[in-house]
This record gives sequence, C-alpha cells and structure tokens, in this order.
Amino acid sequence: MQKDEIINEINKTNIEFYDAFENLSIETMDKLWKHTEDVVCIHPGWDLFRGWLAIKESWITIFSNTEVIRFVITNTKVRHYNNNIALVVCLENIKTISDNGQVIKIGVNATNIFEKNDLNHWLLIHHHGSVVTNYLPPNVSSQLVEPTNIE
Amino acid sequence: MQKDEIINEINKTNIEFYDAFENLSIETMDKLWKHTEDVVCIHPGWDLFRGWLAIKESWITIFSNTEVIRFVITNTKVRHYNNNIALVVCLENIKTISDNGQVIKIGVNATNIFEKNDLNHWLLIHHHGSVVTNYLPPNVSSQLVEPTNIE
Repeated sequence: MQKDEIINEINKTNIEFYDAFENLSIETMDKLWKHTEDVVCIHPGWDLFRGWLAIKESWITIFSNTEVIRFVITNTKVRHYNNNIALVVCLENIKTISDNGQVIKIGVNATNIFEKNDLNHWLLIHHHGSVVTNYLPPNVSSQLVEPTNIE
Repeated sequence: MQKDEIINEINKTNIEFYDAFENLSIETMDKLWKHTEDVVCIHPGWDLFRGWLAIKESWITIFSNTEVIRFVITNTKVRHYNNNIALVVCLENIKTISDNGQVIKIGVNATNIFEKNDLNHWLLIHHHGSVVTNYLPPNVSSQLVEPTNIE
C-alpha cells in the first residue's frame, strides 16, 4: 500500500471518530475503539479513563448531556510507524449549544492513536483532548482540511 | 530483552524527562527529544509546537519563567509496540511557587511517546500535557510510583 493511501485510511478513521461524536453514536464509538483494558481516553479537564468499558461509560455520559455538537477538524498531521501504529494530531474546532441556547466555540488539541488490527482496521487505542486557552476559531465553512503526511 | 527490562528502560527515560524539567535543563531536553520537524509538544492550555527548534524555544521560555518546579509522577502506565514505539501515560503531580511565594499544586495528565533510535535510545517524539480540573494531590512523600506494564 502506498504511503498516501495509508495516510488517507488513517485520516478517514479519524474523521469517523468525530462523526460518531457529532452523531452521539455509541454504536459507532464501539466499532472504532479497541476493546481492551489498556486503552486510554482523556477528555478535556477530566481525569483519565482506562479500558474500553470505562471509556464507553464516559461517552454515554457525554452523549446524554449533549444536545448538539459540531466539529471542524483542522491542522491534521498523521505519523505512522511499522504499518500498524498511527499517531494523529489535530485541532478540534467545536461549536456547541449551552443550556440557554448560546453558541459556544472552543478549540481542543487532540492526540489520537490508532492500532491496525488483523482485519486491517485502524482502532482507537488512545485519545487525549485538551482545551486551547487562547483559541481563535478558524475562518472556515464546514469543509475538512486535507491531512498532511509529515514523515 | 525481557519485557520488564524494556518497561524499565522506557520508564527511566520518562523520569529523565521530568528530571530535566525540574533542573530547568535545556541540555538534557536536547538529548531527550528527537531532532526532527515532525515531533510535537502540547503544553497545558497552549497551542501546539511542532518541530524540535520550536519545541526547544518553548522550553527556553518556560524555564526562564520558572524559579522552582517539583514533580511527583504517579499512575505511570507503559505500552510499547514493535520494540520501537513506547506510549507512556502518567499523572504529573506538580508543586511550584508563584511570584508572591505561594505554593501551587496542580495535576497534569501527560501522554509521552518515545521512539527508539538506532543507538537504542528512547527519544521523545510527542508530549501532550493537560491540567486536571478537579485535582486532588496524592498522599505521597517524594517517591516515584513503580510503572506497570499493562500489555
């Protein structure tokens, strides 16, 4: 497989992760994550969750407290190693609605790590998100910026 | 090399990273990081830095604005892949002194990723730190908690 194809494959899975978040879909999250006890998820500001069952619970909690959330993913960079570990860094430009109907815009730096399984699927094994303090929303519509291979 | 030896080796390098931070040593940071343009460093709340030169500048800025900083590293978990990529997750229990002499205690979740080079040295290729909002300092003296292999 060509390098560009691998990058596209990894980026596609990374986008599926944010689609699952937008759609508040536990079923898709379930398909995207590796179901082992060593996977890690750090939501912005929270303590970390380890193991798929704990991580799944955290998504259920987040999804049940979210009405609408929209992501524009920018600055995506993909590194991959030994054809089975992928390290994605991106900026989550998030638009969500507060309880009183106000639009909130936040930026979250994300480290997403994927491992390729025997069926050639890239599965999430690590997500670390953290809020950017001095965040300026980008001047974009809703398109996704093409990923760059920086190897 | 036995699995435990690899874990110890990775943990040793992870601790060297925090020793370099405590000692405000650019020289040691310089030895610990891979000197390429694709390495990434996300300090808590800041925008990300990419490439060793930019990352080095960020450490110089942090060190020149820090009088005293002390780390107790807990909850260290090491995962490694293909004998050349290591993924460390740990909690940085930080004690520092504010300008008016007040002791500040903060907790930072860290994702540290190392790559083994041809000389068998583990080099940092990624650091992502984010402040834990509801942080409770642990009841520890100054000892470091033994790392656990969770593979």
